Amino acid sequence: MAGRREQADGDSGTTSRLSRRGFFTGAAGGLAAGGLAGVGGTLAAGAVEGPGSSGQQSNSDLTYSFYGSGPQAGVRTPPQQYCVFMTFDLQIETARELQVLLATWSGAIDRLMSGKAIGSVEPSRSSAVPTDTGEAQELGPNGLTVTLGLGPGVFDKRFDLAAMKPALLADLPSLPSDQLRAELTGGDISLQACADHPQVAYHAIRDLARMARESVHTRWTVMGFGKASAGAGQKTPRNLLGFKDGTRNITEKSDYDDFVWLGKDAGWMAGGTYQIARKIQMNIEIWDADHIGDQQDVFGRTKHVGAPLTGKHEFDTPDFAKKKADGDPVIPATSHIALAAHENNDGIKILRRPYNYTDGISRFGQLDAGLLFMVYTNDPDNFSRLQRKLGASDRLNEYIGHIGSAVFAVPPAVKSGHYLAEELFG
Amino acid sequence: MAGRREQADGDSGTTSRLSRRGFFTGAAGGLAAGGLAGVGGTLAAGAVEGPGSSGQQSNSDLTYSFYGSGPQAGVRTPPQQYCVFMTFDLQIETARELQVLLATWSGAIDRLMSGKAIGSVEPSRSSAVPTDTGEAQELGPNGLTVTLGLGPGVFDKRFDLAAMKPALLADLPSLPSDQLRAELTGGDISLQACADHPQVAYHAIRDLARMARESVHTRWTVMGFGKASAGAGQKTPRNLLGFKDGTRNITEKSDYDDFVWLGKDAGWMAGGTYQIARKIQMNIEIWDADHIGDQQDVFGRTKHVGAPLTGKHEFDTPDFAKKKADGDPVIPATSHIALAAHENNDGIKILRRPYNYTDGISRFGQLDAGLLFMVYTNDPDNFSRLQRKLGASDRLNEYIGHIGSAVFAVPPAVKSGHYLAEELFG
Ligand code: HEM
Ligand code: HEM
Repeated sequence: MAGRREQADGDSGTTSRLSRRGFFTGAAGGLAAGGLAGVGGTLAAGAVEGPGSSGQQSNSDLTYSFYGSGPQAGVRTPPQQYCVFMTFDLQIETARELQVLLATWSGAIDRLMSGKAIGSVEPSRSSAVPTDTGEAQELGPNGLTVTLGLGPGVFDKRFDLAAMKPALLADLPSLPSDQLRAELTGGDISLQACADHPQVAYHAIRDLARMARESVHTRWTVMGFGKASAGAGQKTPRNLLGFKDGTRNITEKSDYDDFVWLGKDAGWMAGGTYQIARKIQMNIEIWDADHIGDQQDVFGRTKHVGAPLTGKHEFDTPDFAKKKADGDPVIPATSHIALAAHENNDGIKILRRPYNYTDGISRFGQLDAGLLFMVYTNDPDNFSRLQRKLGASDRLNEYIGHIGSAVFAVPPAVKSGHYLAEELFG
Repeated sequence: MAGRREQADGDSGTTSRLSRRGFFTGAAGGLAAGGLAGVGGTLAAGAVEGPGSSGQQSNSDLTYSFYGSGPQAGVRTPPQQYCVFMTFDLQIETARELQVLLATWSGAIDRLMSGKAIGSVEPSRSSAVPTDTGEAQELGPNGLTVTLGLGPGVFDKRFDLAAMKPALLADLPSLPSDQLRAELTGGDISLQACADHPQVAYHAIRDLARMARESVHTRWTVMGFGKASAGAGQKTPRNLLGFKDGTRNITEKSDYDDFVWLGKDAGWMAGGTYQIARKIQMNIEIWDADHIGDQQDVFGRTKHVGAPLTGKHEFDTPDFAKKKADGDPVIPATSHIALAAHENNDGIKILRRPYNYTDGISRFGQLDAGLLFMVYTNDPDNFSRLQRKLGASDRLNEYIGHIGSAVFAVPPAVKSGHYLAEELFG
């Protein structure tokens, strides 16, 4: 099966090899003193080729490489079961501090993805503070990927990096139906941690946030408790509206090249991509009162099988031209798939990598849940174009509200001995 | 391995066999019209003996029986990975309506635990509303257990059931260090859904809440995203303070009999137990700044191995009498285990079945997380006695706050053809 491991040349590089141009000898210590030294008692993670094809059984030993050529892990990676997404505001003032942050995080992410603690869980000196919080000990790497994104703020005046700004990185325009809450928007940096065990994903974000406490403030976060899209060879999972989600998504290499990865003309971002995160609340109790005929018309698909209304099987190609006896299209023109399909959008495709979330009970006593809608695209405007249409006409709008939003540039992966976005500091 | 399946005589009884004294012919329809009829396309769940001993690898086909003699599943059941706990206020006025609710829920819980939908995901009539919301389709039962509890309110004036009130069921007294938030306390009924997949647990609670929408209002909920206690043969997991949790807990049948199950003198509650739910917030960022010596003194155990400070291995028996050269006990007298251990509490033991939770980021920008502390005991006063001591002196208090609380009577399981707490309606 193709595309199982992101990077062909992953290795177990340690942070002591981070020193590009001799800059980083000892730099990691700037954020977490002693934090990246060797640790006793952590798991030795074996590289494993891939999970079972059902996508349901987790494999706690599964590891992906952080280091390599090509894109960062966590984009093309077959979606793991769980995901924690968090954005941060930078509290630092100089490019050099940013450099230290990115180098320190790169080293730590490599350790976490290998199933290692980022530091000592139980330092031998009793007056020492543990560098790893410990709650992922013994759980295994569980296919953890941590994907780092840089928001537009990284390229503002503070760090004198405007010249290096990725060409298409800009705040999203306001879009129809936006119900954004200020406290759920933006961020200078994003971390997306996905794994087949939620505590492994949470531990990664928590410890990365903690080791950078002097440099970043947390901004907003969503904890995804069930994946809502599939990778190659995985069964299509369901979102909280009960529909299969991810049936038609980007899977072919040519589509990745055309719609996800940035090409050579993107300079230092070549091989990278853009990440859009939307927190979309679903009014699940209202949805649950809707009749099946309407639910299926909202999506243009059947609920149980997930077939387009013009077909029988999940992967049948929707026929948007097919008409009923009365002349109306079988797949309603304002259904979600009719509005979003590439056939009706000049061929545009985006990579969707969403997760279900729940925030418990709202202050009105209703179940509060939704979708952490993660998109990867080589042109954020492709998302905006689709959402402009969907936000204006989608029958789904009656049941959802976009309440959180942010956009980031996702730099390509780096080889061992380097750190993410190193080229910024030429 | 003992105790793997709760009920020896589980079967796949359907709600049409719920009719005790002919009462329930068709009663299920009172809450969700047609909701309990046969469903096409749901999973046929095979009974499986048990998960692997690591407790990490989930087995999506694992099922427990709802029907049987003895206690409900979800108490002695080896803790599944995930848990959703929710309490409800009754909106009904008569005992007969309560009877319908309990009978309907019993039938639905049996279906859910067998890995079946509670109704039709895609009804054939397009004007029909689906009775099952569908998001657990294809996921498998994942060892789901749903445990129902009755709060003190069930036995108040409304239903004329005061004479049937379980002897020790009463609101908990106020306890030292309580920081309870009104909106996180109480409830007439509790549902605890645990499974090895969080979306399976969430689906169960969601669909049970939904089918009873006319009868109950949601009150408070906690979603546990990682278990923090172990059953027989499971490795001890860790809580979010990074310590192994569940090392010394109730595992022996004799302890269950002495401290968990209600005896014959409990009348209709014989074989049942009491459930105490506490939502305990942890100040994890403050904890993370504490040095290892203090952290270990707080618990009286080492962090990595989890050994008592007087021992070397996790399961070594703590020696609370052992003194250091300076005369102080090696395990500090105000450490969590010194205060909580049965040796220092007239032999009292409680069954702990906690789960880690996270509520994201607090309004102060701090990681907001904690423990859903589920306790099972045949005398709620045993919990109060321990918590009175812990709340007054525990060194852990600096890092935690009890913000949610409720108590419930957990009736015993029932044989197929019956429903939970049926004896109430003699
Ligand atoms: C809560 C919000 C949303 C839900 C529940 C949802 C659900 C779904 C479902 C069930 C499908 C059909 C199955 C599939 O092909 O994957 C689908 C398809 C799709 N969705 Fe969404 N979606 C949501 C928001 C969005 C947004 C905001 C966008 C883009 C702006 C989007 C873009 C697409 C695209 C491009 C497809 C594939 C259409 C096709 O080619 O047939 N979705 N979505
Ligand atoms: C956030 C709150 C709490 C945390 C993080 C916590 C954590 C722990 C840990 C790490 C242990 C040692 C390992 C073990 O034997 O399981 C333990 C033991 C124990 N805890 Fe807690 N606990 C909490 C609250 C409570 C409360 C509220 C009670 C009861 C009122 C309690 C009762 C016990 C008991 C009885 C033991 C076993 C002591 C022994 O026999 O050695 N805990 N707890």
